[in-house]
Amino acid sequence: MRILKTITLAHGAGGRETGEIIEKFFVNLFKIKRVGEGIGLDDLEDSATIPLSDGGHLAFTIDSYTVNPIFFPGGNIGKLAATGTINDLAVMGAKPLAAMDSMVIEEGFSIEDLEKILNSMKGVLEKYNIALIGGDFKVMPKDQVDKIVLTMAGIGLIPKGRLIKDSYVKPGDKIVVTGPIGEHGAAIMIAQAGLEAEAPTIRSDCAPVIDAIEAAFTVRGIHAAKDPTRGGLAMALNDWAKKAKVSIIIWEEKVPLREEVRIYSEMLGIDPFTLASEGIALIAVEQSRAEELVNKLKDIGYKRAEIIGEVRKEREGYVLVETISGGLRILEPPVGEIVPRIC
Amino acid sequence: MRILKTITLAHGAGGRETGEIIEKFFVNLFKIKRVGEGIGLDDLEDSATIPLSDGGHLAFTIDSYTVNPIFFPGGNIGKLAATGTINDLAVMGAKPLAAMDSMVIEEGFSIEDLEKILNSMKGVLEKYNIALIGGDFKVMPKDQVDKIVLTMAGIGLIPKGRLIKDSYVKPGDKIVVTGPIGEHGAAIMIAQAGLEAEAPTIRSDCAPVIDAIEAAFTVRGIHAAKDPTRGGLAMALNDWAKKAKVSIIIWEEKVPLREEVRIYSEMLGIDPFTLASEGIALIAVEQSRAEELVNKLKDIGYKRAEIIGEVRKEREGYVLVETISGGLRILEPPVGEIVPRIC
Repeated sequence: MRILKTITLAHGAGGRETGEIIEKFFVNLFKIKRVGEGIGLDDLEDSATIPLSDGGHLAFTIDSYTVNPIFFPGGNIGKLAATGTINDLAVMGAKPLAAMDSMVIEEGFSIEDLEKILNSMKGVLEKYNIALIGGDFKVMPKDQVDKIVLTMAGIGLIPKGRLIKDSYVKPGDKIVVTGPIGEHGAAIMIAQAGLEAEAPTIRSDCAPVIDAIEAAFTVRGIHAAKDPTRGGLAMALNDWAKKAKVSIIIWEEKVPLREEVRIYSEMLGIDPFTLASEGIALIAVEQSRAEELVNKLKDIGYKRAEIIGEVRKEREGYVLVETISGGLRILEPPVGEIVPRIC
Repeated sequence: MRILKTITLAHGAGGRETGEIIEKFFVNLFKIKRVGEGIGLDDLEDSATIPLSDGGHLAFTIDSYTVNPIFFPGGNIGKLAATGTINDLAVMGAKPLAAMDSMVIEEGFSIEDLEKILNSMKGVLEKYNIALIGGDFKVMPKDQVDKIVLTMAGIGLIPKGRLIKDSYVKPGDKIVVTGPIGEHGAAIMIAQAGLEAEAPTIRSDCAPVIDAIEAAFTVRGIHAAKDPTRGGLAMALNDWAKKAKVSIIIWEEKVPLREEVRIYSEMLGIDPFTLASEGIALIAVEQSRAEELVNKLKDIGYKRAEIIGEVRKEREGYVLVETISGGLRILEPPVGEIVPRIC
């Protein structure tokens, strides 16, 4: 066994090393990890839940946003925090109700920028009728925090019978994606490399996926949903394969990927399957309902929704990609830090 | 009107300037600030609430902890986060149920220290049967965050009829404090000044006040409770005076204050009335019940519980201190940063 002495950037990257830290220092340490039969710490889901007496659940999520730069093509840290919070609730079957923010900001930060960030946050939350019910505000000297660490907690209501989770993915399910992958990761990567002028069409997809998830619930046979953020498709699908004890095969030619994103990923040496999205969802749906779901998604504006793969029984825990050239490769959960401070 | 261009340390200090930022950029900006008739953003309470169909409320709180040093006499940032979260729920009448944490940690942070911090957090939460149901974990380069920013959100249940809030303070109420003031602030101040060796008896009081609040509910006539953290007694009492539209008079000779804390506050030029506590509560209680409450608190171990003042109608919005020498001074809400990164 490796002996860990210090924290590395990879521990915060959302890939395999983050999983190890969470397992070792949180899941194994804490004894009280859930309320009643709710979703708890060791479920490692996008939200935790507390069961209600009517058979529904309250859903809760928390995330700290450390994205760099805080203003990026397609959004800013305020829009991202509100979006990420909403999506973490929505993919569990929850209707988001309320949010709370906690801001740690550097001394000397521009009030004008703060206003822009808060306006973006407000825009996203209020579009979906989500209340900001409270928060915290702290300031640290400039050498002690870089611009802003913005934490947001979200609260939602999961009506009776609507809770979905990773382990509900079933052999035979089709995997549907609501839009092109890797757009947020590509935008941050481009911004960090100072290439915005060369790649003006690369923008974060940062947007709530509530309407996609709500549309999915009008189609029966939805087993799970997930927003592939840190670690991208590779992390999300490996999570499903491991937790549901299934394998997942993805047909590369079906995966929507914008040409510019493909080119810049290649140029920067990054597999787009590991790049974060902030505005798409993966949905595992019964085979017989998959076409209907894709059509419904296209109807409401997700023009590039696709069936990209299917769930199988054999080779439990693996994600395989049938490549465009006809080969088969194992898609591993990402290791190391792909793009720092991606969200 | 002053025109603000940048954020200052005082904006995060929890005093008057924090109030201005919250008012201007949060309360005035957001339009959807509560769920139903729950406690919302503009109530500026220790927790927000969501009303339940049975007449009770769910309570929510979030805070980011940036305390410096992260290990201090009497505790560490993990113990402080768990304690602060519990206390913010308890002072609203809630029974804490669950918590979620979000950690932003510097690259190279010691695993041994991380384990100590998490063990302290766990110790406090599990002592009160509170579940850690989820969280987030991010890492930033060493020059972008100083050690740890630890955010914790808490969830509690307020049984029907038990919701208490600042504006419920009433003329005639007595103000009870559960123990000596300013101990946390003094400990951080001493640690930051490198005076631990000279002042070994000064330790943070960091501890949940649940049992004090539960005891208070067995005495009837409790109108409000508050844990005087950032800005200390001065901030907490001014909040009450303003929100409840009353004045509060405090008898200085009655306020429990340990001699060492008084001496070191004086030495460092800080009014102990503005120093944070993390293990005491202020309780506003009907006059006729105040003695009974103090006796009950003493019975369960709060040996220095005291009636320190009373609520009056005239001079609405003011807090006055009747000094030991017999004079009367106005206790203003603190201005500027008293001790940086106190919590």
